[in-house]
Order: sequence, then C-alpha cells, then structure tokens
Amino acid sequence: MDPSILDRRCIDTLRFLAADAVERAGSGHPGTPMGAAAAAYALWDRFLKHNPANPAWPDRDRFVLSAGHACLLLYGLLHLTGYNLSLDELRRFRQWESRTPGHPEHGLTPGVEATTGPLGQGFSMAVGMALTERWLAARFNRSGHEVIDHWTYVLASDGDLQEGVSSEAASLAGTWGLGKLVCLYDANRIQIEGSTDLAFREDVGGRFRAYGWQVLGPVDGLDPDAVAAALGVARGDRERPSLIVSRTIIGYGSPEQGTAKVHGEPLGRKNLLAAKEALGWPAEPTFRVPDEVRAHMAGAVSRGAAAEAEWQARWASYTRAHPELAAELRGRLAGELPEAWEEPLRRLSWPADAPLATRDASGAVLQALAAAVPGLVGGAADLAPSTKTMLAGLGDVSREHPDGRNVHFGVREHALAAIVNGMALHGGCIPYGATFLTFSDYLRPALRLAALMGLRVVYVFTHDSIGMGEDGPTHQPVEHLLSLRAVPNLTVIRPADGAETAEAWRAALLNTGGPTALVLSRQKLPVLDRRVLAPADGLRRGGYCLWESGAGPPEVIVIGTGSEVHLALAAGRQLAARGLSVRVVSLPSWELFDREPRKYRESILPPEVRVRVAVEAGTRLGWEHYVGLDGAVVGLDRFGASAPAEVLAEKLGITAVAVVETAEELLGRRGAGPAAGPEPKTGER
Amino acid sequence: MDPSILDRRCIDTLRFLAADAVERAGSGHPGTPMGAAAAAYALWDRFLKHNPANPAWPDRDRFVLSAGHACLLLYGLLHLTGYNLSLDELRRFRQWESRTPGHPEHGLTPGVEATTGPLGQGFSMAVGMALTERWLAARFNRSGHEVIDHWTYVLASDGDLQEGVSSEAASLAGTWGLGKLVCLYDANRIQIEGSTDLAFREDVGGRFRAYGWQVLGPVDGLDPDAVAAALGVARGDRERPSLIVSRTIIGYGSPEQGTAKVHGEPLGRKNLLAAKEALGWPAEPTFRVPDEVRAHMAGAVSRGAAAEAEWQARWASYTRAHPELAAELRGRLAGELPEAWEEPLRRLSWPADAPLATRDASGAVLQALAAAVPGLVGGAADLAPSTKTMLAGLGDVSREHPDGRNVHFGVREHALAAIVNGMALHGGCIPYGATFLTFSDYLRPALRLAALMGLRVVYVFTHDSIGMGEDGPTHQPVEHLLSLRAVPNLTVIRPADGAETAEAWRAALLNTGGPTALVLSRQKLPVLDRRVLAPADGLRRGGYCLWESGAGPPEVIVIGTGSEVHLALAAGRQLAARGLSVRVVSLPSWELFDREPRKYRESILPPEVRVRVAVEAGTRLGWEHYVGLDGAVVGLDRFGASAPAEVLAEKLGITAVAVVETAEELLGRRGAGPAAGPEPKTGER
Repeated sequence: MDPSILDRRCIDTLRFLAADAVERAGSGHPGTPMGAAAAAYALWDRFLKHNPANPAWPDRDRFVLSAGHACLLLYGLLHLTGYNLSLDELRRFRQWESRTPGHPEHGLTPGVEATTGPLGQGFSMAVGMALTERWLAARFNRSGHEVIDHWTYVLASDGDLQEGVSSEAASLAGTWGLGKLVCLYDANRIQIEGSTDLAFREDVGGRFRAYGWQVLGPVDGLDPDAVAAALGVARGDRERPSLIVSRTIIGYGSPEQGTAKVHGEPLGRKNLLAAKEALGWPAEPTFRVPDEVRAHMAGAVSRGAAAEAEWQARWASYTRAHPELAAELRGRLAGELPEAWEEPLRRLSWPADAPLATRDASGAVLQALAAAVPGLVGGAADLAPSTKTMLAGLGDVSREHPDGRNVHFGVREHALAAIVNGMALHGGCIPYGATFLTFSDYLRPALRLAALMGLRVVYVFTHDSIGMGEDGPTHQPVEHLLSLRAVPNLTVIRPADGAETAEAWRAALLNTGGPTALVLSRQKLPVLDRRVLAPADGLRRGGYCLWESGAGPPEVIVIGTGSEVHLALAAGRQLAARGLSVRVVSLPSWELFDREPRKYRESILPPEVRVRVAVEAGTRLGWEHYVGLDGAVVGLDRFGASAPAEVLAEKLGITAVAVVETAEELLGRRGAGPAAGPEPKTGER
Repeated sequence: MDPSILDRRCIDTLRFLAADAVERAGSGHPGTPMGAAAAAYALWDRFLKHNPANPAWPDRDRFVLSAGHACLLLYGLLHLTGYNLSLDELRRFRQWESRTPGHPEHGLTPGVEATTGPLGQGFSMAVGMALTERWLAARFNRSGHEVIDHWTYVLASDGDLQEGVSSEAASLAGTWGLGKLVCLYDANRIQIEGSTDLAFREDVGGRFRAYGWQVLGPVDGLDPDAVAAALGVARGDRERPSLIVSRTIIGYGSPEQGTAKVHGEPLGRKNLLAAKEALGWPAEPTFRVPDEVRAHMAGAVSRGAAAEAEWQARWASYTRAHPELAAELRGRLAGELPEAWEEPLRRLSWPADAPLATRDASGAVLQALAAAVPGLVGGAADLAPSTKTMLAGLGDVSREHPDGRNVHFGVREHALAAIVNGMALHGGCIPYGATFLTFSDYLRPALRLAALMGLRVVYVFTHDSIGMGEDGPTHQPVEHLLSLRAVPNLTVIRPADGAETAEAWRAALLNTGGPTALVLSRQKLPVLDRRVLAPADGLRRGGYCLWESGAGPPEVIVIGTGSEVHLALAAGRQLAARGLSVRVVSLPSWELFDREPRKYRESILPPEVRVRVAVEAGTRLGWEHYVGLDGAVVGLDRFGASAPAEVLAEKLGITAVAVVETAEELLGRRGAGPAAGPEPKTGER
C-alpha cells in the first residue's frame, strides 16, 4: 500500500476511534483528537522510542498529552501500538472503573505518563521530565555508556499555552536550554468561547523565541510528512527546546469542523456520519480498525522490544563497567532510598537551650540528608535563602552545569510545583520545592495533581503564620493550613521543634504514595526539652501526648501544632499549677493521626474528655474535627497585619494566656449545656 | 536651583526615606526603592495626574506598585506629594496600626490603589483598571465631554514578570489593545537567589512585543530624563500598551548595590552611611527632606487641585448636557445599585416540575439582572457556555468594541481573577468571573487579595462536585468548598435550586465588603417545592429550616447544601416516615449563617440536638463545625472518578440512603458514648 495512503488510514482510524467513543459515551471531546491525529501519529510512528510491552522502561521517550481533553487520541495510540488497552476499554470510555477516563490518569492506564486535563500542567510537567533526563544523564552516563538518553515530547493546545503556568515553565526550559524537549503545539485557533482571536492574538512563536526556544512552522498539522520534517529539525538542535507550531482544524472532517461546536461534546450521529463520509470512512462498524492499520501500528511492539533489548545490552555493559553507578541508578529508578539514609538524622541534635526556627531545623536536616540521599534535588521559587533549602556546596542545576542539586525556579511557584511533578514522574530523584506557605496558593493546581497521581514530592512551606511578622497580611498565611489539609492524599506536617522537623522529613521521604507538605516557622521557637517531654518520634503517628500533669484521666486536653505547641505546653503547665489534670498533645499531622487505629486515637483523645482546647495560628474552622462543639479553638479568623511578630501574637490573641482563659471558660461552662458551636469566622480586618 | 540637581535631590530623598525607614524598622526592602526611585519620580513628577487632597477623584491616573515590597518608594511619594501620610507614619513603618505596612494595603493608606506584594498581582490588576477606564469611557464619554480619560501606570519588577499571572494578563492587554496602560519594568537583574541569569534569561521585551505591546528601551532607569522621554513615547501610542524596560541598580548607592544582599533586609548602619556618603547625602538627620524637595514635590497639591477643578468643570458641563448619563455614572462610581434592581429577580419563577441545574438558574438570573444592573460586567476563563455567564445580546468587551459586557479571558483563570480585582478597584462596575469550581485553585492568590481588600466581586464556580460526572477527578472538586470557606471575608454560597440561586446573586450584589463565590451544579436538580417548603429567602441568613416533620423538637437534624439538599430532604422524609421527628436544614452559606446572632443559630441547630447528619459532595472534614463529634457527615474524602454522575453518587455513597443509614447508626449509638470523632480523611483513590 502506498505509504501515504496507509498513513492517512492510520490517522483516520485514530480520528474515528475518538469520535465513535465520544458518541458512545455521550460526552467527551472529539475535536482535538480529530484535528491533532496526524501530528501525533507522525510523532508516534516515526520518532517515539517506546516499548508497549514495558511502559516502565526507564529510557523510553516521554510523551505527555497536555491537552488532556484529547485523551482519546492517546488511548487510540496506546491501543493501536500494542499497549495493554483493549478496544473494549475504548468502548467503555468514561465509565466506572474503565481504563479510559475522561482525562488521562497516570497509574490507571498503561502508557499515560502524566495525569492531565487542567490546562498548562502537562506542558510544565514535561519540562520537569526533560530536566530530569538531562540531570540523570549528566550524573550517570559515561563515555560509551549512554544509559539515559531519551526525548520528551508534549502535545499542547492553545489553552495550554494561555495558562500562566506554561509560560513560567517555558521560560525556565529556555533558560535551562532543554534541547531534548519538543512541544507540538496544536494550533487550531479555536477555543470553547469561539475563535482564539477573542482572547489570544499574541504571536506565540515570537513569545517562545523570546524564551530562547527554537520555533518551527507553522507547518500543516494535517500532513504527517510536514510534521515529521519539523520533528526532524527539532531534534537537530540539542541546545534549545523546540516548539513546532502545527496548524490544524479542530474536528477535521465534521461539517462543523473549525468551530467551537466540535470541541466538547459528541458530534451527533448525523455529523459523525457526514465526517466519515467526507473522509471516505465506512459508517459501520464503529470502532473500526482496518487490518493494514493494525498491522502497521503494531510494528511498534517489535520496534519497542528491539529498542529496549538494545538498551538492556547497553545497561548490562554499563553494569559491568560501572557497577556502583549502575547499582545507584537502579535503586534510584526503583524509588528506593539508599541504605543507612536515616543515619545522618540520628546524628542531629537539638539542644534545648537554643531556640530555633523550624525552617532552620529543616535546613539542617536537608544538609544532613543531602549526601545520604543523592536523589534529593529541588529548590525554591526565588526563596532559597529564606526557606533554607539550598544544598550547600552541591551546585546548581543549570544549562552549564546540568548535574547540580539546586534548582532555581525564579518567582514561579506554579511552574515549580508542576516541574517537580514531572521530575517525580520521570523517576530517579526525590524532588522538593519550596516557597512561603502563603504562596502555596499559587501552586495548588499542581499540588492537587501530585496528590491525585500519588507522587512522592516534598513541599517546604515556610513563614507559616503571623509569626513571620512585619511583611504583613499578604505574606501571612491564615487559611492555608486548613486548605491543604482538605486535599485528599496530601500529608501536611507542621513540626514543633528540631526533633519533630527531622521526623517530618523522615516521614516525607517514606511517603511514597503521595506528596507531603512540611509547614515551618520563620521565627525562632523554644526547643522542646525531650528529656522531660515525650520523644518526637510520636510524630510518626501524627499526634501524641507530649506531656501530662499526672497519671489519671485528664480534665483538660490542650492541643497544638508547630509554633503553637510551646504555647500549649506553657498553658497546660499553668492549668496544672492551678490543680487541674491536664494533657498536652502535639498534633503535627492530622492525616497521619487520622490514619491511626481508633484505639490509638482514643488513647490520645479519650472520647469522654470534651474539654479540649486547640491552639494554632490559623483558621479556627476545621479544628472542630478534634475539639467538637464542646471544645474551643484559639486561632485566627481574620487576616493578619504588619507588625512585629510578638505584637501580633498579643494583639490577635495567640498566646498561652488566651489558651488558659479559654480552657477555664470551657471548664466553667461545663454542665451549663453546650453552645451552638464555636464562634463564627469573621470578616473584619 | 538647576532642575537636574533638584530632581536628583528629590530622588535621593526618596531613596533615603526608604533606607532610613527599613533601618529603623529592622526589616523591609531597601533595594528596589533605591534603584527605582528615579523612574518612579519621573512618572510622578512629570506625568501622573492625581489630586493628593482627594485620592478618590474618579478620573485620577492609577499608579499600581506591583513590586509591593518596594512600598516605601510609594509611601515616600505619597508623603512628599501631599497625601495624608505623615513622616511619623514613615517612622512607624511595619508597626501595629501604622499606615505604612510591610506591603501596600489598599484601604489603609490613602493613595494606595491596590494591595500588592504577592508578585504579578499588581501588574494584572492594572490591566483590569485600564480595561475599565476604556470601558467606562466608551459607555459614558460624549463628544466634547471626556469625563473618563486617565492613564494606568504600573511599576513591575523582574519577579512580577516571572509570575504566570502577569504573562496571562499581558497577553490579554495586548489582545485588547489597552493603549493607556504603561508598565515601567524595573529591570535590575537581581532577585533573591542572585542574578536573574539563574532563572530568567528570556528576552522580556521580545516577549511583550509578541503579546502586541509597544516595547521601549532599555533606558537608563537611574536617569529621570531618559525615563520621562520613554514615558512620552509610551503615551504617544494609544493602540498598544507600553512596556518601558528601565535598567536600574538595586540598592543604588550602597556598597553592596547590584547584589541580592540589598533586597530584603536593612542595609545596616555602616552601609547606609556609606550609601549616603556615596550619593552626597548627610548622614543625619534620618528621614531628611530638604526644603527645596518638599517645596518642589508639594507642587503636586496645587497641580492636583487644578486638575480636579478642571475636571469638575467638565463634569458640571457633562451633567448639564447629559443628565441621565451623569446620574448613572455617578451612581456607578459610588458603587450604588440602580433603583429597582431587584425587580427582575422577583419576576423569575422556578416551576417545581422542571429540574434545573443551578448553573442554568444562575444564567437565567444573570440575564434578568443584565439590563437592571448595567454595571454588571464579566466573563469566564473560556467557559462561558458551560458556566452560563454570557450576557445575551450585550456584546463583547474587545479592542474593536470596548463597551460590550462580556469579557473573554481565555484559559487564564488567574489573570481573570486579578483583572476582575482591578476592575472592582477602578470602580464603576460590578465585575464577575467564572470557571469550574475545581479551577478555582488556579486563581486563589487573586481571590485572597479580593477578600483582603474587601472588593465586591462575584465568582461563578460551576461543575461543583462529582455531580459533573464523566470529566473525571481532575475536573471534580472535592476539597474546594472547604478551602474557600476557610478564606477570611469570602462569602461562599452554594444554592440548592433556582430560588436559592436568585437569592444567592442578590446576596452577592449586596455584599459590598468582600467577594462572593457562587457554587453551582452542572447537573440538573429537583426544584424544591416552595409551596410546601420554607421560602428561599431563608438564604439571607445563611441557613434555615427547610422542612420538618412536626412541631416538636427534632430528634435528628439533616443538613445539606446545594445539590445535596434534595438528598437531605428525601432522607429526612424517609426518617420521618419511620416515626422520627426530623428537621431538614438548607445551609447554603456558612459565612452568612455564622454571622447571625447566636439565638438564631441555636433556633436552627438547637444545642441539645446532637444527632446531626450533614450531606455534601465534598470533604467531610470541616463539617464538624456543625455536627461536632457526635454527628456524622456523608461526604467524600477521596478524589472522584470518571463515570456518569448517577453511578458516581451511588459508588461513592452520596445518596439519600446513605444519609438515612448514617442517621440510624447515630441514633443506635446514642447512649453508647461518643466516638473519637468522624472517620479519617483517607488517601485512597
């Protein structure tokens, strides 16, 4: 068969698998798969190095579908190239427990490199993958032993390139000179509200040139040869990432092609049939895969097997030549922690007479871990000195020095988190990202994806309350702790002192099933004297009894986290001095605590003890989870203010005195019947 | 005195007011004020149209300090040009209740147009201001009566232009051709981690050209004449926004000028003295303002008075020529709602036999309000058809048609929210912005600023739960309701049907002291039959008793919001059918309810009734605020999944049956002692 006819048939197969699946599901996005099929096919058919039989092969090229709504294009490619994704799964598009959800989900469908759908994220994760490829290559490759050598491709839509996160990531990719990153930009000039002229008249190519990218095209994105030619040129420049502007027609073939109508709903039976007729495709059967298409695209299986076999031979040779490096790389790619990695943590000491900010404690822990855990790599959104996240003496990850350990993200929290996701997805590292807690707002969409994908990434969020002082309410988190605790599968840990901070880092590195947010103080805190208090390894269970006044059941429980634990302790001791039986609980992680068996939780918070006071320099809302309607919370339901930290604590009532008074008020209220609940969140400033 | 010597003295005064204030406070950012003083001075001295005696003059030029950390530059300018901001206030920099907080706060300090500090926000708000200026001018100006005619200036730093939100806003400003927007880009090439080469090697000017901006410079930003010349050229192009690349030296004068060391902490006594010496400035007194500087800069007072007087004359003439327009504009600028604006809401009807999505109800309300409230203007982040936010027949706000009512933001949630903030700050409109609830994550930093500034903006967040169905977990909010409820001064309203949706919009427009988030369903909901249920105006109090089985005190209270209220009602009726005394509470807004007097709250949720079940298709965490440790929540502590909505509801247990079973379990537990609290948030997917 004429190769161009065969190409066309493969492309049309992808188009109509997508259109048929959307039609059958009754919802979905047919337009982009139909428009972008030729470009994606060109990439997959002629360039993509992958092994459908082993989607986990470490040296495969990465393909990220940033335009996640076009998932059926990816499902079609995966099916046809021999991944474990049957045609029946395509028929079950968007159904409960199918492997073909409405947007691609990493971990659910083999060959899906990243969960996408929220626009801009896939593009930015691809930047993280390409960075990691180069980083690992620089660290592990040896002359004649290129065991890490692959490309990262991303297919992005107009919407992807409108999102700010992709702008941030593109600027970094240009700064870093990620030459093995190629973006196919599916420029169909249509978005949901209509023509891109409504909101997107910029010169995208010019913008990317300004970032330092190689920009190719516009090419005819409906012509696989044109796209392939551009891909060839893109791969010729290893100094700059490449953007290929691929002009396409959304919903190609449909009578309504080139309009927003084909974007996000089934074409409808009539238009689907018209599209098939227009492209010379039989109306029936649906989900049709011509034999010659199946045969041609299944060629990916043998090509993939050969490619991986060739790599395995290289790997074997590398293992012989560089056994230690190979062992380290193998462990890294498997996500293992090195042996004895905890040793340096044990050597840290936290003298009780030296007040310490938990951000400084975290810095000390990081320095201690840096050598023991060489996969640890990360940086801050231009706040490394403040967040104490620079690994001393270990160099930067830059264009000139790709194998450093410190990444400079600039003031780009969102790209930071998305890139860190891409690094974790790539594998071979344990990435962390840092900023002030209040700016965690900037990166939530990427953080949410980390939680959804179950990625081991670590966020270092410092300056975690009004305790940061003079910078004022724009920089003082209030609602952020609760907002983070609300995210499923995110573990939030707010340690109270150095010893808890070391435990928090330990928990973060051991949490292989999801992200961990470490929430740390700017200000110095009294170090808890562990000679008279419970040991900090209680953190492993999320919350623990730090101190109590006597052996009997407590009359009052005071609960604190992080920088307020020492207030809880001071208040508890004062209450005890007044003859009350008091327990003080340090509760650095709600998630860890809530995962404990009920028996343990009830041993710490006995159900019958209802006089409970929580203290935290954040929203009071949420703490009813532990103190219920009969307890009380010393917290904040307003924004902060610009003033020295100690003045703020006094004025806004985050003090041991306030805890004592609140406890006494609760004790006085006992028997008088419960109130309607804690006081309202107020809006005043 | 030689004008250039006088200029230099004014500039040095600004520099050392800043450096002295930081030194005195012991914290703050001296470097950018010292570097950017000349450029800002050039703008304020030679171009800015403002009246220090009346910071609220509607036709003043707007100046936004996007680099909010350089606040002392602004405070110095405000002080010297005669605003009500004394030198004593500068001495009280960063102190409790001073008017000189660590970052500029709108509403606290006269002349501060926007609260800034989180980078990128000020730039993007300025875009909203410039858009609104043009919008009002197009609507209200008449030939010979240009009552709206001013410029918007913004001073932005490297960090501002790294943030994605500014990229989004810049692209829109270019698309819209906002010719009266000028950005002074203080390019000092230094950020906290060091040289901008670390993370920012892009060609910023080239990027802005690609957006469609006029790009000028680089100019010597230490030379006020050079900056003034560029400003003159910038103002010559009214078709394109202008970026002036102003090359400066951070911490100019200090021995450590041009390094990150001068960015964010006091220079230190030694270096401050050296800086003064280097620039020929006396070491003492601190906070020195030479007489000639004071005299020269106070000229802004008389110039401002004259400018406003000239405008007042124009306004008087306009009022005579176009009394109706003038009356409308006056009311709009005062933030008033037109008379009888509520009438159209009263005319809406919601037949009980026609299931309706609350997003559709919201669309109907918006259409009804559009004519009655002509200041209502807004749009979506490329989701107008889905969020039902297009005002029919009222045109787009575009380069060609500046006076439409529908703004197309593209897929740029963050810029949407920041621009909407700028629109509200400008005044003359009531702006709204729409996207899916899950993508509220993208815009949180701007939403937080709206809450902090107390701006009347309305967010329309649709597709508010797993009820949106097949698009899957990336598009299904779970944690978002709680995350939004946690934000101080944000009012979240999740109406249950058409009648509550109309009430919700009414509440939003009446909420002049802060933003309101309307949280709406994608899916159709049964309309609550108000003939047998309580009227929807109960929403005004946040929560109300929707139905109860009898007059006596309830044994069980079932609480729901939004799309789950009908489940609560069905469950309540089933429980009543089993002989229980049941109350069903619709609780669309926690914030409104919590603001009610305790007596009202206790009348709805009697303290002694502890068998309370809440149902909401979001996190269970947070609901303990109302159900305490003895109640229970039917909710979600995991991410959703891709499947039809009804399947998801069943599989994930958001059903009336689940509510009934939960209530029965609680009733069975009574007397058996309380549990340790609701079940944990789990991480599994």
